Formats: sequence, C-alpha cells, structure tokens
Amino acid sequence: MAFRIALIGYGNIGRAAEQAIIAAPDMELAGIYHHNDSLDNIQADAVLLCTPTREVEKFALLLLEKGICTIDSFDIHNQIVALRSSLGLVAKTHKAVSVISAGWDPGSDSVIRTLLLAMAPQGITYTNFGPGRSMGHTVAAKAIEGVKNALSMTIPLGTGIHRRMVYVELEEGIDAAIVEKKLLADDYFAHDETHMVVVDDVEALNNVAHGVNLVRSGVSGSTHNQRFEFNMTINNPALTAQVMVSCARAAVRMQAAGRFGAYTMIELAPIDLLPGDPETLIKQLV
Amino acid sequence: MAFRIALIGYGNIGRAAEQAIIAAPDMELAGIYHHNDSLDNIQADAVLLCTPTREVEKFALLLLEKGICTIDSFDIHNQIVALRSSLGLVAKTHKAVSVISAGWDPGSDSVIRTLLLAMAPQGITYTNFGPGRSMGHTVAAKAIEGVKNALSMTIPLGTGIHRRMVYVELEEGIDAAIVEKKLLADDYFAHDETHMVVVDDVEALNNVAHGVNLVRSGVSGSTHNQRFEFNMTINNPALTAQVMVSCARAAVRMQAAGRFGAYTMIELAPIDLLPGDPETLIKQLV
Repeated sequence: MAFRIALIGYGNIGRAAEQAIIAAPDMELAGIYHHNDSLDNIQADAVLLCTPTREVEKFALLLLEKGICTIDSFDIHNQIVALRSSLGLVAKTHKAVSVISAGWDPGSDSVIRTLLLAMAPQGITYTNFGPGRSMGHTVAAKAIEGVKNALSMTIPLGTGIHRRMVYVELEEGIDAAIVEKKLLADDYFAHDETHMVVVDDVEALNNVAHGVNLVRSGVSGSTHNQRFEFNMTINNPALTAQVMVSCARAAVRMQAAGRFGAYTMIELAPIDLLPGDPETLIKQLV
Repeated sequence: MAFRIALIGYGNIGRAAEQAIIAAPDMELAGIYHHNDSLDNIQADAVLLCTPTREVEKFALLLLEKGICTIDSFDIHNQIVALRSSLGLVAKTHKAVSVISAGWDPGSDSVIRTLLLAMAPQGITYTNFGPGRSMGHTVAAKAIEGVKNALSMTIPLGTGIHRRMVYVELEEGIDAAIVEKKLLADDYFAHDETHMVVVDDVEALNNVAHGVNLVRSGVSGSTHNQRFEFNMTINNPALTAQVMVSCARAAVRMQAAGRFGAYTMIELAPIDLLPGDPETLIKQLV
C-alpha cells in the first residue's frame, strides 16, 4: 500500500515536493493544503510542512496530536534541539514520528558531517556554502528602509568564511550611501565581508541555484592526513523538497516500527529514506 | 562506563584498530587476539574482526553465540546479503548485534551512495576507486605461476572504469611474456585494461594510500542537473579500522536498545557512530 503524503504550503518547496511525491514509486499525494486551510479532516500518513520555518512548530504540533507524522526543513540552527524536544514529547504521546530539519543544511550535509567525524574523529570540517541566495540575509536586506527589493548572495571564500553580495533595488530618491551604511551595520552583515550593489531589477538576477563544498582533514586512529570533500551544485527548493519526501518514508516506517518521537536526519538509518526492500537495496548500494 | 572493545587479527587493520580504540574517549581495549588464540574466556562488549574476509563468518558466529557484538569489514560485495542473513539469525537468538561490511567500500561509501539516491532518486552514480592498491587483484596476481611478488594498483579512468597497473617481481628464469599472458587471461584482469610491469622490488612500491571519487548527477522530483561529488584520499587500513571502531559503538548501543540482528552501515543511524550524548551532537552537527 502506498504511503499517503500530504503537504502544507505551496511556495517553491511545496511545488517541488508535489513533484517529488508524484515521482516516488511508493507514494500517493494525499492533498495540498494552504497555510490557512482547515486541517480537521486531513487524511494522510505524513505531512510535509512546506511553510516558513517559524510556522513549522504550530502545524507540527497540530498534526502530531492527530497521530500524523510530520516532516519539516526547519533551518534555525540554534533552535533545532528545542524543536526536537517539543515535537518529540507530543509525537511520543500520540504515537507519531516527526523528522525535523530535513533539508540539505541542516539535513543531508549534517549526515555527511556526522559520517566524516566517525571516519576521522580528530580534525576540522569546513562547510562552505554557495554561491547561492541566502534567504535569511535577503529578508534582512529587504527590511532596510529605502530598499524596494533585495537579493543577498552567499559567496564561499573557503575555511567556512563567506562574502555577502547584496543586490538592492532602491526606492525613488533614496541615498544609496545611507542604505549601505545601515546594511553594513545590520547584525546579519556586520560580521562578514559585505558588498552592496545597486541594480535596476533584482528579479532579473534571481536564481534558485545553490551549492556546498564541505571539507574535512582529520585523523583516523593515530593516522593524520585523511582528506575528505563533498561538493554539490543543486536547485535549492528541488533538493530540499526531495529530502523531505525521502524523510517522510522514513517517518512512516519508524512509526510502523513503534519508534515514536522526533528525529533529525543524523538519527535516521539512511536505508529508510529509500523505496524498496532492504535486501535489494543492500545488494545494490553496499 | 567505557565500551570494552577487543580485536582479533593483528595485521594492518588490527594495528590501526588498536590505535583507534585507544584514541576513543569512551572505549577501553579489552584484548588483542591472534587468529589461533582461544576465545573461550574473552570478555568484551564487542569484538572487531580484523581477519581476512573469508574468516569473518566463522569468528562472528562464535562470538555472537556468546552474546558478544561483532564488527567486520567483509568486502566480497555479492556475499554481503548472505552474511547478513547468517549472522542476523544467530545475533537475534543470542541478543547481540553484528555490524557487517563496515569499512569504506563497502561501508562509508555505501552510506554516501544511499544518501545521494535519497537526494536525487533518478540518475547515475559512479564510484571511482584509487589510485590505490587492490587487495583482491594483488592476491590474484601473486597466485600466478612464476610471480614472486606482486602489487596491483587500481587507477580510476572515470565513469566507474578502472585500469589495473600490475607490478610483478618474477622468479629466476621466468619468461615475462608467459606470465603476462596468464595474467591478462585471469578473470580478475580479463575485463579491465591491464598493464603488467616487471620490477626488481615490489616492496619498494608499497603504499597503503587509497582514495575514491564518487559522483552522481540526478533528478530531485522533476528537477534535473542535481550534481554531487564525494572525494577522499586516505590511508586505507587506518580508515577501515576507524570505521570499524565507530561501528562498534553503534553495535553496543543497538544491543542495549534491544535491536538485535546483523546490520550493514546503511541500516545504522549515523549519530550512533559518535561518542557523546545526542543533544550535544545535534547542536554541533545538524
């Protein structure tokens, strides 16, 4: 029987999630809900929360209380442990499973970081993001007085250091120098090398491409110079949605196995992310 | 209380495993056993089987029957499912856990392949090995009549295609052309581009360096051109041993959680490979 997967939110990620559910051989789309739809009669094994990050907890609690699994890509790194604790309690009470922060970072990058730490416990990992659009920095730039539209690109400079290229469209008659001063003073930008570039049309620059370069040099046992590197260049919402859909499969399986609670991706067995039976997958992948 | 980890076999991997156990903050070395030592009085939570691959099953069954967890780096790809089935049965009966094929390929590479498939379910993954020494091919070359010593290097040519560079030291008075003909006809070499090079001293070329370049280009949902790449250059026995040691931690934890059986690495939650409590690890890695 196919997993019945619904989704809430129909922005970039919601639309990509719809495609990933349709493409999955073992899933059926159990509904698309907008932010303000009633969830009273929702019928699904799991629901993907393709909402803004700050709305994740509210929807997750509502669904977990019904015993329905939830999957989100909550991305405020320093609040993940608290979310796991809050959702975990309700999930356990109502015999459901929640997979949280299931995107690419946090998400699949977290799995890579964990694996590399197990392979070389001593050493340094650098996660270099981009080039790609930073959602958080873009929102912060847009909030500055006189900014009509903005796009903040994250440019990797290596060793986890990033440059911010901020493209802004200004309101009529605004002094660019004043906007730049405010931008550079903003807490989002004050700690990184930041360049503001005034443009006529921010939308003309828009592109959901993103990427990562994750490197570790470390020590296995007492042997130094173990070197690892993971690179990807991807369509950001498509990958985020696909990871969420794969995690929905794991959530429903863990619920069936009685392993109720809230989990990050590093707490899931990777095999549970894939369709098919274990022996076939092991034969193919191990 | 520290995990008590013993090991059987004291070759390259056994020696590296000893170092990795000593370096682990939550483990103590519970003994080093040679292949022919009696295991009657072995006291350990888990035992690393640093033996030749073909001896893994025998030792694993003996230990699992005592309720002791085992970890191996069994690397005959097409026999992994059978080994998992055989050890799984005994592990379940005696309430133990066995982690099998826990090296880097099979092993950590398998985890990467699984994760990439979950991130882009449609597409092609190529695993390119080396440059590095192939144990299996080296043994096959050594077995040819007239060969005193040999070293078979695996050279990656991309898209999963490999060249074999076989360095041989010949017995006195042997015709190199005859050895080469036998080598190229051997099933280990017949399917790849193979070059035999006669040298005076094979040991002078020896080096445990190895590596991998694992690439996938695939589709997330309906979005093509998602590109992923994992590279590593490593000391082979040091990495194999470290992965085994990290998997020993997971084995003992799963035993404590009552999840008895035999598992490949793609069936383990990555977080279980690491020392420390879950919330601290999640804060650091997710």
